[in-house]
Amino acid sequence: MPQDPFEWIGAQADARRRAGLARTLRPRPERSAVLDLASNDYLGLARHPEVVQGAAEAARLWGAGATGSRLVTGSTALHAELEDELAAFCGFEAALVLSSGYAANLAAVTALNGAGGLLVSDAGNHASLIDGCRLSRAATVVTPHRDTTAVRKALEGHDGPAVVVTDAVFSVDGDAAPLAELAALAGAHGAALLVDDAHGLGVLGDGGRGALDAAGLAGGAGTVATVTLSKSLGSQGGAVLGPARVIEHLVNTARTFIFDTGLAPAAAGGALSALRLLGREPGRAVRAREVATGLHRRLTASGLTAVRPDACVVSVRAPSAEDAVRWAQDCRAAGIQAGCFRPPSVPDGISRLRLTARADLTDRQVEEAVEVVVATAPTGARMPSADRPSGAAEAGLGRADRS
Amino acid sequence: MPQDPFEWIGAQADARRRAGLARTLRPRPERSAVLDLASNDYLGLARHPEVVQGAAEAARLWGAGATGSRLVTGSTALHAELEDELAAFCGFEAALVLSSGYAANLAAVTALNGAGGLLVSDAGNHASLIDGCRLSRAATVVTPHRDTTAVRKALEGHDGPAVVVTDAVFSVDGDAAPLAELAALAGAHGAALLVDDAHGLGVLGDGGRGALDAAGLAGGAGTVATVTLSKSLGSQGGAVLGPARVIEHLVNTARTFIFDTGLAPAAAGGALSALRLLGREPGRAVRAREVATGLHRRLTASGLTAVRPDACVVSVRAPSAEDAVRWAQDCRAAGIQAGCFRPPSVPDGISRLRLTARADLTDRQVEEAVEVVVATAPTGARMPSADRPSGAAEAGLGRADRS
Ligand SMILES: Cc1ncc(COP(=O)(O)O)c(C=O)c1O
Ligand SMILES: Cc1ncc(COP(=O)(O)O)c(C=O)c1O
Repeated sequence: MPQDPFEWIGAQADARRRAGLARTLRPRPERSAVLDLASNDYLGLARHPEVVQGAAEAARLWGAGATGSRLVTGSTALHAELEDELAAFCGFEAALVLSSGYAANLAAVTALNGAGGLLVSDAGNHASLIDGCRLSRAATVVTPHRDTTAVRKALEGHDGPAVVVTDAVFSVDGDAAPLAELAALAGAHGAALLVDDAHGLGVLGDGGRGALDAAGLAGGAGTVATVTLSKSLGSQGGAVLGPARVIEHLVNTARTFIFDTGLAPAAAGGALSALRLLGREPGRAVRAREVATGLHRRLTASGLTAVRPDACVVSVRAPSAEDAVRWAQDCRAAGIQAGCFRPPSVPDGISRLRLTARADLTDRQVEEAVEVVVATAPTGARMPSADRPSGAAEAGLGRADRS
Repeated sequence: MPQDPFEWIGAQADARRRAGLARTLRPRPERSAVLDLASNDYLGLARHPEVVQGAAEAARLWGAGATGSRLVTGSTALHAELEDELAAFCGFEAALVLSSGYAANLAAVTALNGAGGLLVSDAGNHASLIDGCRLSRAATVVTPHRDTTAVRKALEGHDGPAVVVTDAVFSVDGDAAPLAELAALAGAHGAALLVDDAHGLGVLGDGGRGALDAAGLAGGAGTVATVTLSKSLGSQGGAVLGPARVIEHLVNTARTFIFDTGLAPAAAGGALSALRLLGREPGRAVRAREVATGLHRRLTASGLTAVRPDACVVSVRAPSAEDAVRWAQDCRAAGIQAGCFRPPSVPDGISRLRLTARADLTDRQVEEAVEVVVATAPTGARMPSADRPSGAAEAGLGRADRS
């Protein structure tokens, strides 16, 4: 009698269900009355008529797919145009577009690791950076979250090429990396700096030029950035930005670039339209940050524990995974969609309600959302009012609220 | 004076240039007189009005991007529809759509490897399957290309969960895996079978239902398939097909699913339209195979060494990497675009001209293409006429032409 090859899968599913950690997909309908505070569409561009038109028009001009690897038939003039404008906008010499931000991170981390190289990676980095470190098979030192002393020690203890790898804005808590310090450390040790600006592009820097622009680091000789086209640009895809020779190196060596079909023209066209729109309307980036700050101020004033947002992600602490799930469900029932992050997707095991700000939310919508989140908060999520932050946390004077 | 962190990249670039192996991107214009025999658009659907319309309409209804992970805001009713129809078409219980075929392979290989598991992977497998094996960190036995004896030995020597991993149609040479034998071996040893049908979907099996349909293996309890939406379906994206519990397992554990933005609606809509079109016009799959067979017959009759195609890829052997590059350039100058595969993208170091068949090529176009490929062939690519295959190779009686 042959065994069941997936018996262990059934056992894992049972354990997941017992722990209340099973996830199911809930496809959304075309129109919904629920207010979205869970997506990463920070500028509200995914459904913007100009962006939609850019996507539709690209499909019409170039076809529904790229038809092959970017090295064979998959590079269109549209891809080149997007790369040129993205590099110019963000202040880098060159850019390379891939099919997703995930693929861009795998490409950058694996290709930038030279022989005998060391990767120094923040413990809070996104899964795609972590997978890049794993795939590269390089020696990797995982440093505690935002710990520049640990980064310095790792660099001092290594002889040979090294890359400091970090999210610009961490996806779970929305807090920012100490980019200036990391760049100084990397520079002093002849190491490269690789920054994933998935959550900074379109939100941080001058007119949304990103976290590296904000830190004055864009275009540095040892600096490489990755971005995604799927968040503030409302589309799909990812890109690596850096010196031309680094981009040429990726074209020649990055497996997730070489052995992957080029990004669909519609996604490239949508992202390009969004980029141009942002260029014309830089106020969108400002508004997105303003909404995030407002959300955080109101939530903490009501006694909830939230990390002060450095971009658009506002992470609110929940007492337990079950509480987080029920909280998100109650919000939804009351018309607000919030993200629910819990094990195993959170590195520290702390469950959160993850709210995201969007430039197109009105102040009234923000207030409504806060009312619902506060009203549905589980016992234990709210601090006694004596301990609530005054203006300090919002003004950035204290970070006691950082989880 | 700080060192240059990318000095080693410059050195590699110089070495590549000296070896004549540097690649550059050549974006294609919107319309071109060059006949494409290099893309993977096997059914000629990427620019089909219905498919383009499906993509454009989806962008209009759902937006240019999915706006979040499939587990948060990125699952639309359109994704669910595509998954249902794809599973039904290919004969599997369930399907899960990811942002690329690459991501689907990473997801499937990493998630299907249980604790203490073994992966048995064909040496000719696609880069994405290889990267999946690396990422999984599982014990992996790489078996010689199409060597079922080696697969049997690997399975016999292991106690615990195992997965046999193979391309259905290998992307470089277009030859097929011995699926029936592999399934029998896997079954006898309680192992799972994971088949990447990127090049079989739309081409092999009844009406293009794929290589697993052709082998009578679709829907097996221990069988999982991956497909891409970027080749015969003319769009972008990938999917995993298998038993519902395996799909549920991926939803809960596959990192390239959980931590990646959902596939753009336009790509899902384009693929769905292509799938429906194929359902109505099954003759497209037949025609694609006919064109491939015709290409191969004519090329080998002219003395070139080509692998008999099991699907739409017709791989022609070149004497050297430089010859292959020049050959492809000469073809292009004469109006034919052919793929050029050479080190380091070929596992065996043999350079090839890689031609692909498309259902929408006319017999006249096939003849023209063959004339150009033969006329531009480098010395050493053509066999002396005495050694040329008669009808034997085409009829499948001999595989002496397999490289
Ligand atoms: C920090 C970060 N990097 C990379 C990615 C991956 O980008 P994409 O979804 O475009 O693949 C994400 C989220 O999806 C992210 O949050
Ligand atoms: C055999 C095989 N599997 C997977 C892939 C990856 O699919 P995608 O390009 O959709 O990422 C490809 C080619 O691109 C392939 O040839």
